[in-house]
Amino acid sequence: MALIVQKFGGTSVGSVERIQAVARRVKREIDAGHQVAVVVSAMAGTTNDLVAKCQALSPLHDAREYDVVVAAGEQISSGLVAIALQTAGVNARSWQGWQIPVSTDDVHAKARIAAIATDEIKRRMAEGQVPVVSGFQGIASDGRVTTLGRGGSDTSAVALAAALGADRCDIFTDVDGVYTCDPRIVAKARKLDKITHEEMLEMASLGAKVLQTRSVELAMSQGVRVQVLSSFVDSPGTLVVGEDEVVEQEVVSGIAYSRDEAKVTLIGVQDRPGVAAAIFGPLSEASINVDMIVQNVSEDGKTTGLTFTVGRADLDRTVQLLSQRQKDLGYVRLVPDANVVKVSVIGVGMRSHVGVAQLMFQTLASKGINIQVISTSEIKISVLIAEEYTELALRALHTAYGLDRD
Amino acid sequence: MALIVQKFGGTSVGSVERIQAVARRVKREIDAGHQVAVVVSAMAGTTNDLVAKCQALSPLHDAREYDVVVAAGEQISSGLVAIALQTAGVNARSWQGWQIPVSTDDVHAKARIAAIATDEIKRRMAEGQVPVVSGFQGIASDGRVTTLGRGGSDTSAVALAAALGADRCDIFTDVDGVYTCDPRIVAKARKLDKITHEEMLEMASLGAKVLQTRSVELAMSQGVRVQVLSSFVDSPGTLVVGEDEVVEQEVVSGIAYSRDEAKVTLIGVQDRPGVAAAIFGPLSEASINVDMIVQNVSEDGKTTGLTFTVGRADLDRTVQLLSQRQKDLGYVRLVPDANVVKVSVIGVGMRSHVGVAQLMFQTLASKGINIQVISTSEIKISVLIAEEYTELALRALHTAYGLDRD
Repeated sequence: MALIVQKFGGTSVGSVERIQAVARRVKREIDAGHQVAVVVSAMAGTTNDLVAKCQALSPLHDAREYDVVVAAGEQISSGLVAIALQTAGVNARSWQGWQIPVSTDDVHAKARIAAIATDEIKRRMAEGQVPVVSGFQGIASDGRVTTLGRGGSDTSAVALAAALGADRCDIFTDVDGVYTCDPRIVAKARKLDKITHEEMLEMASLGAKVLQTRSVELAMSQGVRVQVLSSFVDSPGTLVVGEDEVVEQEVVSGIAYSRDEAKVTLIGVQDRPGVAAAIFGPLSEASINVDMIVQNVSEDGKTTGLTFTVGRADLDRTVQLLSQRQKDLGYVRLVPDANVVKVSVIGVGMRSHVGVAQLMFQTLASKGINIQVISTSEIKISVLIAEEYTELALRALHTAYGLDRD
Repeated sequence: MALIVQKFGGTSVGSVERIQAVARRVKREIDAGHQVAVVVSAMAGTTNDLVAKCQALSPLHDAREYDVVVAAGEQISSGLVAIALQTAGVNARSWQGWQIPVSTDDVHAKARIAAIATDEIKRRMAEGQVPVVSGFQGIASDGRVTTLGRGGSDTSAVALAAALGADRCDIFTDVDGVYTCDPRIVAKARKLDKITHEEMLEMASLGAKVLQTRSVELAMSQGVRVQVLSSFVDSPGTLVVGEDEVVEQEVVSGIAYSRDEAKVTLIGVQDRPGVAAAIFGPLSEASINVDMIVQNVSEDGKTTGLTFTVGRADLDRTVQLLSQRQKDLGYVRLVPDANVVKVSVIGVGMRSHVGVAQLMFQTLASKGINIQVISTSEIKISVLIAEEYTELALRALHTAYGLDRD
C-alpha cells in the first residue's frame, strides 16, 4: 500500500465529464489498496476569467482581493471533484486552504507555503477518506486568503506530498510526460521514463512548461518523487526523481529552448571599474531580469563591448532606460535584437563527461549556425543563436547527442 | 451620521460595469458621512451555473460539497466589489462567512444564522473601512462552509444589520420597491412608501418575490428597518418598518396573488374522527405542504366533502398518494384542479376595520367571479378563484380598495 498525492490541472477538471474521469482515476488507486490525497486546480478558463474581471476593475488592484477572487476557482473544483468521487462510491471531502490550514507568508498573489497541517487529514485518510484539496490557495497569518501564483497548484501538490510523507506525487496534465525535446519540433523526441530534479528544473525554467519551477525546487529539497503524466491517456509518465535513483545516467537528457529572449549589445562602453554596476543597476531597479552576460576583452584598454539578454517582453523598457542614461553610462551605440533563441543542452551526466560542449559547438558549426553568446552551468550548456535556426539546431543537436527515437 | 447595511443582489453585481455602479452608490453614502457595510450576492447566473454542475455530477449530491461549490459565487463578487470600491477611493475589504465568522447551524444548503461576530468589523468601520461581506454564506460549528438557501443574501444582510445595530438595511434589487399590486397586471399599481413587516411577510410568502421570507421574519423579530430599492434607478424605494412607524395606516396595503396553487377536492369522505389526520398524514410525510383547507358540513351525518390546496408542483404526487390510499381513506372521488389562483387582500389596518372581507366578496361577485375557498388571518383575506379571472379580480379589487394611482 502506497500513499499517493494526485494533482489534476485545469484541463483535467475542465468539464463535468473530465471531473468524472478524474474520479475514476482516483478510484482505481483506491481499489488497488492505496491511500490517495487529491489536489485540484481551477477548471480550465476559470482563473483567466476571474483575473480578467479584476483587471477590468483596476489594473492595479489590491492583491489581497485578487486572491479572494481567484481562489474561488479551486474552491469550485474541489467541491465538484468531491461530489464526483462520492458518486463513484469513494468516501471523499473537500478542503480549502484555510480549513487545513495551508499556512503561507503574506505576499499576496505569489505567496510561499510555510507549513501544512496534516494531522486531521492523515487521520481521515487512515479511515479511508480521500481529501480533495484546493490547490493554489493558502491562508496568511492574519487570516486572509493567499494564492501561490500561476501554476501554484503543482507546488501545493508537492508540498502536501512532502507534509504527508507520500510515496509519490502524480501531476496529471495535458501532456503525457517530459520529452527529450519539444515533439512539435523534433519528431523523433522520446518521452523520458525518468529525469532528475536538477534537470527538470533547468527544463522548467527554460520554457518546457510542464511543471511550475517552484514545485520542482520543492520536490528536490524535500525529496519528493514526482510523476508527470496525462489524465487523457492511460500510460506511465515521466518520473522526476533524486539523482541517486537514476542508475544509468545519459550524458544529455534533453534539449530545451526558449524564444522568450532578447539580446542587447552596447558598443564602445568605457572600460573602467563600476561600469557594469552602472548599467545593470537601473535594470534591476526596474525589475528587469538579466540572464546571459558577456563582456568582450578590451582591445584598446579604453572601451569594450557588452552583450546581455533580457526577457523579450522587457526589451523596449530596457532600450528606453539605457538610452536615457547614454551620457552617464558613456557607451557609443546600443543594438537591440529580439530575433534570438536560447538553446540548451541539459544533463547531470555531463558533470563526469568531457567533450559535451565541444559536440554542441561542432554540431552547430557544421550546420552553419553562428553562436552569439555562450553560458554554462554544471548540468547545462546554453547558446544564443538567431531565431531562424531554432528548428535546424534542435534537430541536429537531438541527433548528435543520440536522443533520437529508434 | 447613520450606519447603513447595503445589500446588492445578483443583477446589481452582474457585470464589471454594474459593480462599478455599486461602488459609486456606496461611495455616495460614505461621502455623506455615513458608515456603510456592504453585503453581496453572486453575480447573476453564477449560482445557477454552479448548481447545474453539482446536479450534473449527481442529483443527490452531498449538501456539504454543494455549499463549498456555490459559496464560491459570493466570494468572487465580494472581492470584485472590494476592488471596485478601492478603485473609487473607498477604503474597503472583503469578508467571507468563515472569516467574520457568520456562525450557522449545520443544516447544509439551508442553514440558519446563529450569530455574527462584529467586533472586528465595527472597529474597522469606525476607522472608515467598508466591509464587503459575502452574503448567503456561513460556517458550521465543525468548520465547514454552509449556505442559507436561495435568496439567502437578503437574510445575511438583515442579520448583519441587526448584529451591527444598523439604522437601516437597504436591499438593492431589480425592482424599485414594493407595489400595491403586480404592475405588470394592474397598470394603476402604486409604489408603497412604507409597508409593515407583517404585511411584507404576507406579500413575500404569496409570491411577490421581492425579499426572501426569512429575511422579513428576521427584520420583524430584530426590529430592523429594511428599504427595498432598485440599483438601476435613483429613487427612494419602499421602507419595511415596524407597525409603530406607520402613522396613518391604510386599511388595505396591497393585493397579492399566487398562481403556484392547485386544488384537490375529496368527495364522499367518511365523516368520522381521525379522517383528516389519515388524509394529511401521508402528504406531510412526503413533504407536501397543504395550505387552505375547507371541510364541508356533513349533510347526512355519514359523509362529507374536503377541499384543500397544495403547491402546483406537488399536485401529481398528491393525487398519486391519495389514490393509492382510496380504500383506507374511504372517499368516493378525487377531483384535482390546477387552474386556480389565490388572491389575497393584505393590510394591518383591517384589524380595526369591519367590512373589509365583505367588500372583497361583493367586488368579486359583481364581476361574476365564483369564490371556491376562503381563508383569513388577522391581516389577510385570501380566496381561491378560477385562474382565468386573475387579472379581472386583481384590477377590480385594486380599484375597490382605493389603491389606484391618481
